[in-house]
Amino acid sequence: MNQQNDITQKEPITAIATPVGEGGIAVIRVSGKNAIATVNEAFKGNDLTAQDSHTVHFGKILDGEGEVVDEVLATLFHAPKSYTGEETVEISCHGGVLVTQAVLEAMLDLGIRSAEPGEFTQRAFLNGKMELSQAEAVADLIHAKSKKALDSAHQQLEGRLGEHIKQFRQQIIDATAMVELELDFAEEDVEFANKEELKELLVELDEEIDNLLATYETGRLVKHGVKTVFIGLPNAGKSTLLNTLVGKDRAIVTEIAGTTRDTIDVDWSYDGLRFILTDTAGLRETEDIVEAEGVKRSQKAFDEADLAVYLKDLSRELTSEEREDIARFQKAAGETPFVLIGTKNDIALEVEDERMDYDLKISALEGEKIEELKKLMKQRALENKEYDSSSLLVTSSRHRDALQKAQENVRSAIQALEQGMTGDFLAIDLRAALKDLGTITGEITTEDILDSIFSRFCIGK
Amino acid sequence: MNQQNDITQKEPITAIATPVGEGGIAVIRVSGKNAIATVNEAFKGNDLTAQDSHTVHFGKILDGEGEVVDEVLATLFHAPKSYTGEETVEISCHGGVLVTQAVLEAMLDLGIRSAEPGEFTQRAFLNGKMELSQAEAVADLIHAKSKKALDSAHQQLEGRLGEHIKQFRQQIIDATAMVELELDFAEEDVEFANKEELKELLVELDEEIDNLLATYETGRLVKHGVKTVFIGLPNAGKSTLLNTLVGKDRAIVTEIAGTTRDTIDVDWSYDGLRFILTDTAGLRETEDIVEAEGVKRSQKAFDEADLAVYLKDLSRELTSEEREDIARFQKAAGETPFVLIGTKNDIALEVEDERMDYDLKISALEGEKIEELKKLMKQRALENKEYDSSSLLVTSSRHRDALQKAQENVRSAIQALEQGMTGDFLAIDLRAALKDLGTITGEITTEDILDSIFSRFCIGK
Repeated sequence: MNQQNDITQKEPITAIATPVGEGGIAVIRVSGKNAIATVNEAFKGNDLTAQDSHTVHFGKILDGEGEVVDEVLATLFHAPKSYTGEETVEISCHGGVLVTQAVLEAMLDLGIRSAEPGEFTQRAFLNGKMELSQAEAVADLIHAKSKKALDSAHQQLEGRLGEHIKQFRQQIIDATAMVELELDFAEEDVEFANKEELKELLVELDEEIDNLLATYETGRLVKHGVKTVFIGLPNAGKSTLLNTLVGKDRAIVTEIAGTTRDTIDVDWSYDGLRFILTDTAGLRETEDIVEAEGVKRSQKAFDEADLAVYLKDLSRELTSEEREDIARFQKAAGETPFVLIGTKNDIALEVEDERMDYDLKISALEGEKIEELKKLMKQRALENKEYDSSSLLVTSSRHRDALQKAQENVRSAIQALEQGMTGDFLAIDLRAALKDLGTITGEITTEDILDSIFSRFCIGK
Repeated sequence: MNQQNDITQKEPITAIATPVGEGGIAVIRVSGKNAIATVNEAFKGNDLTAQDSHTVHFGKILDGEGEVVDEVLATLFHAPKSYTGEETVEISCHGGVLVTQAVLEAMLDLGIRSAEPGEFTQRAFLNGKMELSQAEAVADLIHAKSKKALDSAHQQLEGRLGEHIKQFRQQIIDATAMVELELDFAEEDVEFANKEELKELLVELDEEIDNLLATYETGRLVKHGVKTVFIGLPNAGKSTLLNTLVGKDRAIVTEIAGTTRDTIDVDWSYDGLRFILTDTAGLRETEDIVEAEGVKRSQKAFDEADLAVYLKDLSRELTSEEREDIARFQKAAGETPFVLIGTKNDIALEVEDERMDYDLKISALEGEKIEELKKLMKQRALENKEYDSSSLLVTSSRHRDALQKAQENVRSAIQALEQGMTGDFLAIDLRAALKDLGTITGEITTEDILDSIFSRFCIGK
């Protein structure tokens, strides 16, 4: 991806590039015009300005008063062979919070400015080191919470989405060329053949955009996780099941505060797919104000869920009231996958209500059918969704919106063609579609888009 | 410090060297025999085995199935020019939790073993890249919680403690040589002159060890922080003052759970010195069991404090009971610095009790004399303690113990000399002192000492 031209060396910026905390080493990055010569002023060791690119040098970083801040390794990258495309120094120091901060401060003392979040990657994009969708993939990669999200980010980082978009753009450019050909030879007899061929090309493009858009629902689940809501009467075993599910994988479980800060969601991964499990308070009508608030919240969780799991305690008789509840939820779920689970099967009533059609009967206590439940949850979550581990997924709503707009414009062009409108109108639609697609890879962009994309990066990237 | 000999290349080990979390980049370190060739098996890019030391190479890390795990930079260090002295590869990848873990797993897939905490530094020590006291300084540097602790760790890392110890050892070796000279020429007339000179040498050494030991109390405060206890009647303004003190520096304040998990201590730094501030429940006799438990805990905090601050609410009259309390605490503090502060000076009573000798009268609300209080706290904490920002401090209890043992043996040698004992006895004492000092720098060591030292390192160092 290196390119020798179009590198703009802006004023140098610096930030701690590694996570904050105590570790063996930390890295402070400096990128920009004369980065090496500037860092060299605070570096005691080899003359960094006289060294080759991609070499590492042991030395000491000195503060403004000439005191040693730390023993470090300085790695040099000459432009354009760096992450940003600019001259870059990566300083690897001891990984304590204070010592890392002290090295950063020594850099600031040299007059180097603190980097904004994502500013290094933004410079990489502006210098043509990567497309915008690749830059976005860098953030996705860092924030990935599951194996599948990681894989998906990798594909995007490798430029696979960009390749698709480029191909779409080429198809539109070809179509535009035909329209212009028609405009040029309007008096002659080339018109009809062009129109058929043009329509074919645009219909094909419409379908291809459709196929890519169809991956978004899966992409969203893969990237953000499957919002899973557990419903059921109190004591149906919701918390026990939650603990059983996440128990074995506790190392990667983190509790995340829900939107209301009263609900605690549990982050859990199974077979590469991330689930966000929400325990609900209950969903019955109530007159108690506090309980009513809980019901409201539970209803919201249910409405936003990607997967609903109803738990029925098999050790208790099924009341007609609960049967109605279940039917109501099943109906309310609509297209959201709904799973009906019988719990406490180890102490189930002898006489079973055969009218209920349980997907699974489990016992969290005995570990019965727990693996089956996990598999079922994943299967139902991805049911009817385009998914193949090697297929490209659209994971960003920004990309989906741009694809939808482009598709609208392509369809408008098809319609114009069918209605026999002149090439000028067609050209307007096609140019608009071209622009929509260009916002994905960053050929066409605005300050606002860039700001909103790079502000979600961490500082130091 | 590089030395070309005595490098043992053990089996390769690997660990994530940067702190865990989300950041721009993370570093995975691999060190040991054939580290470069081994990593090369999972590296798609330049042939790493054909590259120079201290060079950086862009490429991809592949997992066991040949799938790309991440785009990385691999930095190569040939033996013995590395941190450990062994062949080393540092892999810099995208700084997400999962992606970093995936790169580590790719290394483990190659059959490389996970490193134990501190194992890289332990290898550096065993390969003679640093002395034991320098290795310990690496951990101190990483865990440093204040500027002074950082400075002190730096001095130790630079080998200044080691230099002192070496000098002491040389003095003992010189003394031993004299003793042996005496043994050789026992019949001749060299004995007396030697004894005087020998005694002079040993007394001088005793004093020098004394001077170094005298820095330990300061070193301990600098390294671990000044345990500061706030005492006073309820509503004397203890919590307000605590918040006022830490308020401006909230960025570096972390709440740490006390030993009882009921007390919350606040970590605060002022002018490079770390304080651990403890708010006490109260210290009065009581019959309430819960309160009695609180009193017990407060008493413990008071007993362990390095600095006691009594707060008297100036807006209330001083009762004879409180006056007695203050006197009692002042007495109980003994050699621990005790500071008497009048609080709420903005609403102080018109008629003031002139019999109390306040160190300062403050108002946290008005910000009155808060800076003066901070200065006073630092001054009193370091009162009567050896301190000079450039002076070497003994900060480790292990080093203090070894110095004390060495001193005992030196004193025993002086005594033996005074009592006219034979050279054999002297030699035993001197050899013991030599051994004691050797444990500090690691010339003499045991598996147990090494294990206990390196186990407090983080993994990846």
